[in-house]
Amino acid sequence: MIVALAGGVGGGKLADGLASILGGRLTVIVNTADDFEHLGLPISPDLDTVMYTLGGIANAEAGWGVAHETWGFLDQIARLGGPTWFRLGDRDLATHVLRATALRAGASLTEITDQLCQRLGIAARILPMSDQAVRTIVHSLEGDLPFQEYFVARKCEVPVTGFTFEGIAKSRPTAAVKDALEATDLEAIVLCPSNPFVSIDPIVSVPGMRQLFIDAGVPVIAVSPIIGGAAVKGPAAKMMRELSFEPSPATVAAHYRSLVTGLVIDTTDAPLAPTIEAMGITVHATETLMKDKSDRKRLAEECVAFARSLTH
Amino acid sequence: MIVALAGGVGGGKLADGLASILGGRLTVIVNTADDFEHLGLPISPDLDTVMYTLGGIANAEAGWGVAHETWGFLDQIARLGGPTWFRLGDRDLATHVLRATALRAGASLTEITDQLCQRLGIAARILPMSDQAVRTIVHSLEGDLPFQEYFVARKCEVPVTGFTFEGIAKSRPTAAVKDALEATDLEAIVLCPSNPFVSIDPIVSVPGMRQLFIDAGVPVIAVSPIIGGAAVKGPAAKMMRELSFEPSPATVAAHYRSLVTGLVIDTTDAPLAPTIEAMGITVHATETLMKDKSDRKRLAEECVAFARSLTH
Repeated sequence: MIVALAGGVGGGKLADGLASILGGRLTVIVNTADDFEHLGLPISPDLDTVMYTLGGIANAEAGWGVAHETWGFLDQIARLGGPTWFRLGDRDLATHVLRATALRAGASLTEITDQLCQRLGIAARILPMSDQAVRTIVHSLEGDLPFQEYFVARKCEVPVTGFTFEGIAKSRPTAAVKDALEATDLEAIVLCPSNPFVSIDPIVSVPGMRQLFIDAGVPVIAVSPIIGGAAVKGPAAKMMRELSFEPSPATVAAHYRSLVTGLVIDTTDAPLAPTIEAMGITVHATETLMKDKSDRKRLAEECVAFARSLTH
Repeated sequence: MIVALAGGVGGGKLADGLASILGGRLTVIVNTADDFEHLGLPISPDLDTVMYTLGGIANAEAGWGVAHETWGFLDQIARLGGPTWFRLGDRDLATHVLRATALRAGASLTEITDQLCQRLGIAARILPMSDQAVRTIVHSLEGDLPFQEYFVARKCEVPVTGFTFEGIAKSRPTAAVKDALEATDLEAIVLCPSNPFVSIDPIVSVPGMRQLFIDAGVPVIAVSPIIGGAAVKGPAAKMMRELSFEPSPATVAAHYRSLVTGLVIDTTDAPLAPTIEAMGITVHATETLMKDKSDRKRLAEECVAFARSLTH
């Protein structure tokens, strides 16, 4: 059993690679601090990206949403004067409407996610980090912004000064998350190459989560989302600069220092290995850019082998 | 000023004809007893049909929904194991989602309908008969059925024995409905060729509505939805047979006897004129089948002229 922590696109790709070699022996704990309500519908962007990616229906070009998407709904919303800044596709909408119906009927986010995953034929378990609402607030030079407003409406252009995870104090790991982390056959925890500040941090900030990692007593490794000073996708590198950090795997290592014993970095960044290892973190350098399915699988295999090598 | 009462397709067509000659001098009071909740969304089939028809975006071939509709949402709902018996199109869905959002934010059905009509450039006023929920229950040989289950899921195949309008006792005409019926320049009330039992009856059964008609002191006319023993569309003729009435304009006349002073029937049914006039109802026989826009306009013009001729 492997537990992976993931946010959206990059995390979803490695989770997909892990699922391709582990199947039902993989549990992915997904960030839900990006979640928000739009047009009365509960949207879980990271859960959906991971679910669509593992279900084989993700829109690879866009990096979000469903493949072969159509836009009749959004087009009509525009005609009727509704909000169009968040692009809801016709197929994607089915997820949100079914989720809304289930949540209103009293199901938990964990339960409806399970049902959707089953229908998509996903063998791995995809779990929200918590069933309680947690919402990332982006502190910026222009004031506080709800995450999706920062991310989608403002296209990450506003310089950030920090983050708050609203509701985090009252959140707790779900029973399913606990079960996965307390499983006797758990071998390792893998932090996927997601944004450390707004994807992985919310997960590990859920009260009790960090202790579950420690109690698991297994290697915890991370894959750097920063390659050669840049993020493959998303604002991670930009955020680092704005927070006065150098965008580099060394910054990732420092950030995860108290959590991980191993870090996978790109071969481009191999010269940084001594700096990172000086922090007490073992480094594995390899090709980390996942351009296709075979890249995902190979990186996943290397991550599992690397984590196993760190046991004891 | 003319007030029209309408259900779905047939009523929408005459309302469209009336709108084409009257513009903002028309108010359409629409049946909402067909309304129901589906996938957490409030659906108002008759309001939508009238709105789409007057807005020029109705799907003429289907008789319901929006023109140039796509089905990505429904297709994905099927894939995810959700209910598909009620066919929600991608464009149609925009109406339901915006309506749900507005109602949850505290708007009335009247208010959100007004907003949607404005966006569709509709000059006539389209009003729900009430802002309170009224739900038609179809009594049948197989027990009680909610209207949409009878109408869509069971395709009207179950023989009916009667109808109950759940919630009607607590409903009341809206302020906008009252204003329209109390307007000093009101000239006539026109019952469009909709189903007498499940489209017009709910409207006139709203407590206080019938008195508003009487107090208006203007001619009330109806257009028979039955032509030559059959309904143009829908189960009106079938229902009449099941309730032991002959499907004929004479049955329509008897049903509306206490309400109308004039009835428009099709030339096919002209021989029934003496029978109907014996009930104290003036008859106008003309071509009532509306195959195109010009039919709608001509019939609307004849209805207005006929109603005016009944003023003393």
